[in-house]
Amino acid sequence: MNVKTAIESRRSVKAFDPAHRISEVEVRELLGQAMFAPTAFNIQNWRFVMVDDPALRQEIRKVAWDQSQVTDASLLLVMCADLKAWEKKPERYWRNVDAPVRDFMVPAIHQYYVGKEQVQRDEAMRSCGLAGMALMLTAQEMGYDTCPMDGFDFDAVGKLIQLPDDHVISFMLAVGRGIQPPFPRGGQLEPDEVVVHDRFR
Amino acid sequence: MNVKTAIESRRSVKAFDPAHRISEVEVRELLGQAMFAPTAFNIQNWRFVMVDDPALRQEIRKVAWDQSQVTDASLLLVMCADLKAWEKKPERYWRNVDAPVRDFMVPAIHQYYVGKEQVQRDEAMRSCGLAGMALMLTAQEMGYDTCPMDGFDFDAVGKLIQLPDDHVISFMLAVGRGIQPPFPRGGQLEPDEVVVHDRFR
Repeated sequence: MNVKTAIESRRSVKAFDPAHRISEVEVRELLGQAMFAPTAFNIQNWRFVMVDDPALRQEIRKVAWDQSQVTDASLLLVMCADLKAWEKKPERYWRNVDAPVRDFMVPAIHQYYVGKEQVQRDEAMRSCGLAGMALMLTAQEMGYDTCPMDGFDFDAVGKLIQLPDDHVISFMLAVGRGIQPPFPRGGQLEPDEVVVHDRFR
Repeated sequence: MNVKTAIESRRSVKAFDPAHRISEVEVRELLGQAMFAPTAFNIQNWRFVMVDDPALRQEIRKVAWDQSQVTDASLLLVMCADLKAWEKKPERYWRNVDAPVRDFMVPAIHQYYVGKEQVQRDEAMRSCGLAGMALMLTAQEMGYDTCPMDGFDFDAVGKLIQLPDDHVISFMLAVGRGIQPPFPRGGQLEPDEVVVHDRFR
C-alpha cells in the first residue's frame, strides 16, 4: 500500500473483533516500524506498554469511559515516554558514530534539556505523536484498523501500568480488525484555515 | 512507495539543494496529507506556517543555530498549534454529522479542555507529531528528504512569525532535495529497552 493511500484510508475505528488474535510477528513489525520514527537528538524517549493481560484491559476500560476498543482490540498500546531519557546514558544514542560527533552530541543533549521540565514534556508528546503515526500507517498497510485515544483518566491508567514517576503517558493506541465502518469525517477545515504564509496576521 | 519502505528509508537530512524549487501542487499535496492526521475530538489544532520569504528564513536561521537547512530547504514549515482551537466554534469540527452526535461532542470537547492548560499544550505537541510524520512520509514517497528540527530558539522564532499568544510552536520541518547522504543511525535501542509488557517493573 502506498503512503498516500494509507494516510487517506486511515480512520479511527471504535469497534474491533474481540476474537481476532494478532501474531507476535505482526506486533514486532508494528513496534519495529514505530522505532524508526525520529526523536530529537536520537533520544528515543518513547516507551510502548503492550497491554495483554485481559484483567488489566478490563481495569483500564473502567477508567477509559468504558470504550469497547480497550478490551476488544487485538493490540492495546499505552504510548508513554521517559521524561529523563536524555540523561540516562545518552552516549548509547550515539554509540555508532565517530567519537568527535559523540563528544559534541552528548553535552548538547544535556544542555538542551537540563532544568527544562516543560521542554522535556513537550518532547515526550511530540515523539509519541511521530511514532504513533508511523505505527498507525504500518497497521493500515497490514490490513488493520487503529484508534488513537486520549479519552481516559491518565492518572488512573498510570497507576494501573505502574508508570514510573519520571515517565508520562501521551495517548493510547488500539489496533485490530475493525467490524464497523468508521463514522463519516466530522468536518474538515479548509487549508486556508490551517496554513499560514510567513507570519500570522 | 509502500509504507514500510517510506518509514525505513526516511532519515533526517541536513544538506539541501538551495536551487531546487518545490511546486505549489506538491506543497498542497504535502499539507493536504498532513491534514488527514487524526486529532483528538477532531479539533484540528495544527497550524502550518510556510516560510517562503527569504529574508525571514535568514532571520530564523540566525536563531536556529545557523543550520543551513533553514534557508536551503525547498519548504520550511513551522509546525504550530492553536491551544484554544477547542473553544473556537467547535461545532464546525462536527458539522457533517447528525445533530445528536454533534450535540454530544461539542460539550464533551469543552469539558475535556476547559481550565486544563497542560492538557491543551500536550494536545498541541501530540497533534503536530502525528501530522508531521504523515507529512514526512508523504515527502519521502514524493522523492523528497526531510528534517524535523527543534534546535532553535522557540521564543525568537515565535516573534519572527508573529505567533499569537494562544498558539505554540511544536517543531520545524524542512523539506527538500537532499544533497548529502544522511549520517549512519546513531545507535538504536533494542526493542526490550523500549517495549514494556503490561506494567513497568
